[in-house]
Amino acid sequence: MRLQGRRLDHVLGVHRASVGDDLCVGSEGGLIGTGKISAINQSVLEMEVMLDQPPPPKLPLVLILALPRPKVLKRVLRSAAALGVPRIILLNCFRVEKSYWSSPVLSHDSLREQLILGLEQARDTVLPEVVLRPLFKPFVEDELPALIKGTLPLVAHPTAAAPCPREIGRAATLAIGPEGGFIPYEMDKLVSCGFMPVHIGGRILSVETAVPTLVARLF
Amino acid sequence: MRLQGRRLDHVLGVHRASVGDDLCVGSEGGLIGTGKISAINQSVLEMEVMLDQPPPPKLPLVLILALPRPKVLKRVLRSAAALGVPRIILLNCFRVEKSYWSSPVLSHDSLREQLILGLEQARDTVLPEVVLRPLFKPFVEDELPALIKGTLPLVAHPTAAAPCPREIGRAATLAIGPEGGFIPYEMDKLVSCGFMPVHIGGRILSVETAVPTLVARLF
Repeated sequence: MRLQGRRLDHVLGVHRASVGDDLCVGSEGGLIGTGKISAINQSVLEMEVMLDQPPPPKLPLVLILALPRPKVLKRVLRSAAALGVPRIILLNCFRVEKSYWSSPVLSHDSLREQLILGLEQARDTVLPEVVLRPLFKPFVEDELPALIKGTLPLVAHPTAAAPCPREIGRAATLAIGPEGGFIPYEMDKLVSCGFMPVHIGGRILSVETAVPTLVARLF
Repeated sequence: MRLQGRRLDHVLGVHRASVGDDLCVGSEGGLIGTGKISAINQSVLEMEVMLDQPPPPKLPLVLILALPRPKVLKRVLRSAAALGVPRIILLNCFRVEKSYWSSPVLSHDSLREQLILGLEQARDTVLPEVVLRPLFKPFVEDELPALIKGTLPLVAHPTAAAPCPREIGRAATLAIGPEGGFIPYEMDKLVSCGFMPVHIGGRILSVETAVPTLVARLF
């Protein structure tokens, strides 16, 4: 197998690997294993690849995120993919800027690029599914009831009465609002659907910090 | 009290607040409370401020980070400040690029700027202390033994035998290595000093994702 470009640069600049060294490698959607470097220079790396282990298991979690601004979205996608979130739904809400929906970050290739960076970081090979839902009401009314079946549906909300539970040992659906939060109408719709509002203390966190914080508490 | 510049832009663009609305405000190093807007336009906001509550408590945690690359450092400082980390030590290690130590991000003003963004996010007012330690060995040998006294000293290490403990209910010192990890010599020095290596599962996380993940597990 041959590496060039960004991944070769990473091996040269970060691993500083040379002939005979083993690298962690994986095949998209498949197994992970090791690649023994048989040749390396500034323009190409060759290695003998042995794929013999499954990638790390995914979390039993569907993450529903109010669409964040494009720069933040890129980082959240990387981090969610690295954490092992298998399914991410990007949802419109009142406090989501309309312009975010026309960002090039939402293109198939750009989403895929960020997800792969996250997977590489975590030695995973299985791309999370990312779904765009630019209409709040039909999503919540028509899709969400079936989607949360068999899961613990939680919505992160700073003024919630209950703290976010820990180590729940079961599947969850977790909704995280936009900067400024879900508006009361949106909270009412989620609660009617069965979501429990939960908080993570007196500190309001940005979505980038909230995602790993909530995932680490739940699992 | 008057707001201009970045903070006024935030009130206009994100809160979309108008006269009579209440904002969360705080005084650096002091109390938090509300500011009732008495006048607002595109160039200035005036409000009557009432400060009557303490900021959220800090975590009993000293965070020791191998100095990350400047762009990552900015985000980690914001997120650590938002999470309530009171003290951050930026440490040199073998796998830290030497050039990172001359980054303008390490200037007093730039560190302060990122910390304040994190505090604002979390409604905190008390600046974390950030300490630079560009020499690994003297720091670990001469300072670290006193620093970890009375705390649980943990070092995040992907190949550790023990999982990171949860809800420890006491003070901790947490060391997180650079991209690529601490080298064996550095791990030996930390372990000799009393640090316990801990992992957070089979997924290797970037420092940006690891910090909130580990903090959420420990507290």
